Amino acid sequence: MNNKITPKILPGFMELLPEDQILFNKIKNTVREVYESFGFLPLDTATIEYSEVLLAKAGGETEKQIYRFNKGDNDLSLCFDLTVPLARYVAQHYNDLVFPFKRYQISKVFRGERPQKGRFREFYQCDIDIIGNESLNLIYDAEMPAVIYNVFKRLEIGGFTIKLNNRKILNGFFEAIGLKEKTAEVLRIIDKIEKIGEENVRAELLKLGADAVSVDKIMGFVGTRGNNREKLERLKALDVKSEKYYEGIEELEKVTEYIRMFGVEEEAFQIELTIARGLDYYTGTVYETVLNDYPSLGSVCSGGRYENLAEYYTKQKLPGVGVSIGLTRLFSQLRENRIIETASKTLVKALVLPMDETCVEFAVKAAGLIRAEGIPSDVCYGGKGMKQKMKYANRCGIPYVVIIGENEVKEGKVTLKNMNTGTQQALPAEEAADIIKGDK
Amino acid sequence: MNNKITPKILPGFMELLPEDQILFNKIKNTVREVYESFGFLPLDTATIEYSEVLLAKAGGETEKQIYRFNKGDNDLSLCFDLTVPLARYVAQHYNDLVFPFKRYQISKVFRGERPQKGRFREFYQCDIDIIGNESLNLIYDAEMPAVIYNVFKRLEIGGFTIKLNNRKILNGFFEAIGLKEKTAEVLRIIDKIEKIGEENVRAELLKLGADAVSVDKIMGFVGTRGNNREKLERLKALDVKSEKYYEGIEELEKVTEYIRMFGVEEEAFQIELTIARGLDYYTGTVYETVLNDYPSLGSVCSGGRYENLAEYYTKQKLPGVGVSIGLTRLFSQLRENRIIETASKTLVKALVLPMDETCVEFAVKAAGLIRAEGIPSDVCYGGKGMKQKMKYANRCGIPYVVIIGENEVKEGKVTLKNMNTGTQQALPAEEAADIIKGDK
Repeated sequence: MNNKITPKILPGFMELLPEDQILFNKIKNTVREVYESFGFLPLDTATIEYSEVLLAKAGGETEKQIYRFNKGDNDLSLCFDLTVPLARYVAQHYNDLVFPFKRYQISKVFRGERPQKGRFREFYQCDIDIIGNESLNLIYDAEMPAVIYNVFKRLEIGGFTIKLNNRKILNGFFEAIGLKEKTAEVLRIIDKIEKIGEENVRAELLKLGADAVSVDKIMGFVGTRGNNREKLERLKALDVKSEKYYEGIEELEKVTEYIRMFGVEEEAFQIELTIARGLDYYTGTVYETVLNDYPSLGSVCSGGRYENLAEYYTKQKLPGVGVSIGLTRLFSQLRENRIIETASKTLVKALVLPMDETCVEFAVKAAGLIRAEGIPSDVCYGGKGMKQKMKYANRCGIPYVVIIGENEVKEGKVTLKNMNTGTQQALPAEEAADIIKGDK
Repeated sequence: MNNKITPKILPGFMELLPEDQILFNKIKNTVREVYESFGFLPLDTATIEYSEVLLAKAGGETEKQIYRFNKGDNDLSLCFDLTVPLARYVAQHYNDLVFPFKRYQISKVFRGERPQKGRFREFYQCDIDIIGNESLNLIYDAEMPAVIYNVFKRLEIGGFTIKLNNRKILNGFFEAIGLKEKTAEVLRIIDKIEKIGEENVRAELLKLGADAVSVDKIMGFVGTRGNNREKLERLKALDVKSEKYYEGIEELEKVTEYIRMFGVEEEAFQIELTIARGLDYYTGTVYETVLNDYPSLGSVCSGGRYENLAEYYTKQKLPGVGVSIGLTRLFSQLRENRIIETASKTLVKALVLPMDETCVEFAVKAAGLIRAEGIPSDVCYGGKGMKQKMKYANRCGIPYVVIIGENEVKEGKVTLKNMNTGTQQALPAEEAADIIKGDK
């Protein structure tokens, strides 16, 4: 074999070295644990689906990005999000599910985007959704921020703010001032207010066709200041000719009360009237989450309430609410900005070092005893000297080494060395395991 | 929306209801924990690779099964196993890895096989491999059975036997009797001995072109009986003109000694001379694992030692040893044969039941306190009566319900009911959490 093929992967695919993979898995695991603690059930839908099923709703930009191909007589696609498979799953298994159906799914999804910084073609999504049968209690709109709050608290990556809004407020307001059709454009302009300033925003809105009165109203609306309670009061005081608008305010007020009930700190959630999310999908509460010290990362967890999950597959009305964390992108940004750092090159907590060939058997047994106590351990069989092995353990971030020499074998003990403090002591392997276990 | 699309997935794709998914995840988690306890590092290679890279070696049957397609200018394929991506990964990141490199990967792989019972097109593989740089200590050949042993002990699915052999013994033996080229056919015939009997096996071997003396030798060889030590002695006593044969016996003997050292019970591993695995890949020790009470399931964990992992990508010589569990197939067979049963329809350990609307706030807080102690809990907001809610908790296998009524709110306590024993008591939420935690 002389002609070697260059080992490489496609751009836009994240593949990690072990130390980063350990860190990534730790974060993924934390997300999963919090999701499970709120009673969300695990799902693991298929990666490949019939295109007809998966693309029932898709169109435009999404469809172009999809990995689609034929195999035999089948037109197939790779899943590009976890919401469409959820809709298909709930419609398909409707009779076997208990509603409200709370599910989480942490899986890879695939989008053949043009590769660019921070965009991935294969990435993990961590989704939770709560699906009701015909109706769904508004309290679940508050459970989403409660879950997000617990996830980001546990991740310990600094302060964060869950921004929330209600689509009924937006839709009602823009309907009332006759700009319903231009909601998307208006919001896009408003979004630039911090960058380009109020005057330029006004100018762009006028250019868009809004009259001066409407522009005043829009500026008054999005300029609503204060804490959550004050914002709600000011919104109520605006004279908007729309029932939907006031319905939205009432929902948003209740949701904020429920959020407090869930124990979310007041400074962690914020009413933010410029949040809209996808325009044709969400119908009530919408969420975005930003890291306070890194606003440039954009939203790291978003979602909202929708009227009907699975209308393409079933006549059952299935309203729901959900959020999603794009974990691959988040991880890559956290690493790049050094908000998180790798801590260890291994999962091993105790590295057993036999001093020579005659000590290997005892070393293997000692490792087995330590492992039986739930402590990941490994034996170093290599021929290098003890000093080098110690260095290796140190470099890998292994907290304990267990030395087995002639004396240890004779006395049936191990020498446990704490790599952080440097202290060492001779004791039976089981007691060594207890010490390592206690040091967590 | 009147024309609904039938929600369905492709045949050969396993998708589970939540109660089965919970069980599947539990098994997957056990496998992962054991892998990690032996110091294997996590990897998560890309699902999509360049066809040129992924198919460097593939051919014949494998190539036909692959999901291969074009996207833009790229010829892409979905990974069909975890070994080829490992080879590519190790070659690519050679300079960043520490050898021996121990990695595990638990991921979905894809093969577009004709769907049939027990065959999946998308399935989980749980792989471990240990890769050496230039050479790899034989003791790692014994670590594989030690890991398998710990996995299947922990899974509690009954007795199992790890069958092992060494390809050098087979190759040396068949070379010595001049049947090297027909090794595959001979083994296939021998494999039928229990079904068709010794006489028919002899007849088929003669038909294959083996002379009578060789057939006698083959029957003597594969008929080697006794325990592991006796088999090794009898193999040594055979007069085989091949150095490789005796080299293989020496390796196998050492490996069995090492396996004992790892604490694997003698009845859990067995030298079995008919085990060969893939003929052109493995070069030393080979493994298969069968469930004693369900031999018809075939091997549930297989693998072996190979000379060179990544010869298609690098000049570095990278010998290794590894095994793989086909988890999707195993799970499906275990369920079908009722060797495992689902235990719970939910992960929730404590379901909080507010008796009316006025108790919801206290209920949400109680659930939060219990959750903070690491116990998955949920609140039932529904309008149904308490009896029905109790029934629901029972049907779902939720071990505790936490009742919140007017009195509980007034006294700041919860009423904890053990659904198995029926006993209930009023106490602060934190104490309720302690009781639930103690009952694991």
